[in-house]
Amino acid sequence: MLQQRSLRLLSSLSQRATRPAATSVAASLRCRTERPYSIHADASVGTTIKDIEPSKLSITRTTTPKALLPPEELVFGRNFSDHMLSLEWTASEGWLPGRITPYQNLSLDPATCVFHYAFECFEGMKAYKDKNGGIRLFRPEKNMARLNKSSARIALPTFDGDALIELISKFLKVDERFIPDARGYSLYLRPTMIGTQRTLGVGPPASALLYVIASPVGPYYPTGFKAVSLEATDYAVRAWPGGVGDKKLGANYAPCIVPQMQAASRGFHQNLWLFGEEEYVTEVGTMNLFAAIKNKETGQPELLTAPLDGTILEGVTRDSVLALARERLEPKGWKVLERKFTMKELADAADEGRMMEVFGAGTAAIVSPVRRISWKGRLVDCGLAENEECGPITGQVKDWMEAIQYGDEEHPWSYKVPE
Amino acid sequence: MLQQRSLRLLSSLSQRATRPAATSVAASLRCRTERPYSIHADASVGTTIKDIEPSKLSITRTTTPKALLPPEELVFGRNFSDHMLSLEWTASEGWLPGRITPYQNLSLDPATCVFHYAFECFEGMKAYKDKNGGIRLFRPEKNMARLNKSSARIALPTFDGDALIELISKFLKVDERFIPDARGYSLYLRPTMIGTQRTLGVGPPASALLYVIASPVGPYYPTGFKAVSLEATDYAVRAWPGGVGDKKLGANYAPCIVPQMQAASRGFHQNLWLFGEEEYVTEVGTMNLFAAIKNKETGQPELLTAPLDGTILEGVTRDSVLALARERLEPKGWKVLERKFTMKELADAADEGRMMEVFGAGTAAIVSPVRRISWKGRLVDCGLAENEECGPITGQVKDWMEAIQYGDEEHPWSYKVPE
Repeated sequence: MLQQRSLRLLSSLSQRATRPAATSVAASLRCRTERPYSIHADASVGTTIKDIEPSKLSITRTTTPKALLPPEELVFGRNFSDHMLSLEWTASEGWLPGRITPYQNLSLDPATCVFHYAFECFEGMKAYKDKNGGIRLFRPEKNMARLNKSSARIALPTFDGDALIELISKFLKVDERFIPDARGYSLYLRPTMIGTQRTLGVGPPASALLYVIASPVGPYYPTGFKAVSLEATDYAVRAWPGGVGDKKLGANYAPCIVPQMQAASRGFHQNLWLFGEEEYVTEVGTMNLFAAIKNKETGQPELLTAPLDGTILEGVTRDSVLALARERLEPKGWKVLERKFTMKELADAADEGRMMEVFGAGTAAIVSPVRRISWKGRLVDCGLAENEECGPITGQVKDWMEAIQYGDEEHPWSYKVPE
Repeated sequence: MLQQRSLRLLSSLSQRATRPAATSVAASLRCRTERPYSIHADASVGTTIKDIEPSKLSITRTTTPKALLPPEELVFGRNFSDHMLSLEWTASEGWLPGRITPYQNLSLDPATCVFHYAFECFEGMKAYKDKNGGIRLFRPEKNMARLNKSSARIALPTFDGDALIELISKFLKVDERFIPDARGYSLYLRPTMIGTQRTLGVGPPASALLYVIASPVGPYYPTGFKAVSLEATDYAVRAWPGGVGDKKLGANYAPCIVPQMQAASRGFHQNLWLFGEEEYVTEVGTMNLFAAIKNKETGQPELLTAPLDGTILEGVTRDSVLALARERLEPKGWKVLERKFTMKELADAADEGRMMEVFGAGTAAIVSPVRRISWKGRLVDCGLAENEECGPITGQVKDWMEAIQYGDEEHPWSYKVPE
């Protein structure tokens, strides 16, 4: 069966390949840190000898196409389309020609560095069907930029983002039938880069694999658009200034599962990561967090989210929500703020009747309304009425985002995949 | 060719497997944190339905045995023995029977969670040939305990450490000819556990693979037993209180490469991780760090290493060096201390003629003498004379450790693999 054939990597030669000296390197490393940590701005790593050349793409179509699942049976990231896009990289040659092949297993030596040292980073993005049957992506250049930042931070190669968008577009045309044609549904794309060097020495990988798989999805939360309850986590810390919490590295995810399970065991959907003695609100589970509260002094409504200080993921949805809110809420008297805020501020707002609403924001869910947050033995109410599953701003943001994502509203953020 | 056949996982069924509720879980999670972070001690995760049963081991021998490399051509973690030991785990069945098979590729779905969320942890340990031709392991129960702590922290399964030692012993008998018979040489063992669930949802893996591969090795540093120079890293942070820096997770390694490359680009062998405003010395590259200095007040010689506060790896070599030093140096007037110490303390000791020696400690190198440390634009001299590559305590520690590891000195730490 073709689907079960393993993808053998050309880079098996890389066992003997040597990495060029660090002086020949190109991509820029930015370690976001805060005082008192000194900033080392001009450091650079990564290398690209030959960049991605979309014209060299080869396509091998499956001979055993899958049946499409009915939309109601779709579960996030469980079923995949017929094909995958793969590109290999070696330190000596750079990016080898891209290949669209049947979706298939990877065949990797057990000493491959991705299994031992977490040389892995990824992106989450979606393809949407618009009302004319066209295929849309949402700000794909942001995902490409972030993947490059993530990969450079762990000594994996960087690449030309526009070239990868071109290849992803071709991949989408090949697997177009897997993009569900219904609001709220999409084809989730998972660009992934892994180090493939087959040695145990701890050093920069001399070979890598970039691949993209695609999973047709409905709403992320199986319960549908229902408000979630969060548990504030103070006994474990997700990220730290000078760490890598702002990069989309595999390394940031596995350590989050146990606190998530702990929260789940006490009846909460997700955990909320606090930071420091001050208990700053950083992010929730795998999403950024927004809070709408009325200013204590002025009563002015404010939309708050944590700043990009190196301890939170630089979410594309976060950035989009901020931009839309600045454009569309500020004229209505809102203030939109990226600033540090504490769990106590949220609790005070709730106690004083100033809490309006709270929501998570991320690619998988777009927005996820929050009903309450467990913190220090109390439940902080996030402003929803008992029979309400979503506040007005949260719902507004979702509608704005979807209108752009599905192409109902023409907007520069919506990228049309060429016919 | 048998060696190139891919190891197909039985757990391919796990795509549909569901994880038991968090309430049925067993292994203990200990999040080491420091004040002001509150400690959550009784949390538990992980599950073991059926534990490892050594009697069910199956052995399939290679039909194409490899030629042995001459000792001088051995490079750490580059060449492997003929076989590997593998055990699969599923949430519904527990540990399936272990298999010794020819060394071969793993065949994994590209959606497998190890590629996306760094569900991976490992151990480093060595097998030695003693003077009677017997096979020895060094404190293997410590590695088993640590692997269990690592795996539980990322929601991977735990296991009976004694049972895995029994299987590793059988594996060593099968590949005995790969254990080099010379002082300083050994067969490096790499027990590795990865999550194998084939879905993109961020949650506890319902299947996992534990495997052990073996690489005959000489000295870790290709330059031999030569003193290294370190660069103190203050612009990036390896670990933090409440994080996972004390576990042997893949997640702790990839983010370290760029600072290591930065140090290398300026001519240093490794980087030294500092922590916090105080610039506490934590660990060096992939080793723990020891410093021998004379007490400022009393002149008494002290052997210092950072305490197990959650920000450093709980090294088996570190623990062994501490125990040996307490037993054998304290009667000679030394003080052996696990305490926080700063880079400034080291610099002051150097300036005031109180610096004796500094060395790294880890399984790969045992000890690695340090000549100097670059810090804030100066070079802190670590006490070696210009023509010296190793201080007396460093050399003493290495001799003590090797005498036990190779079985010259009978010691409870040396585990004899049954004939």
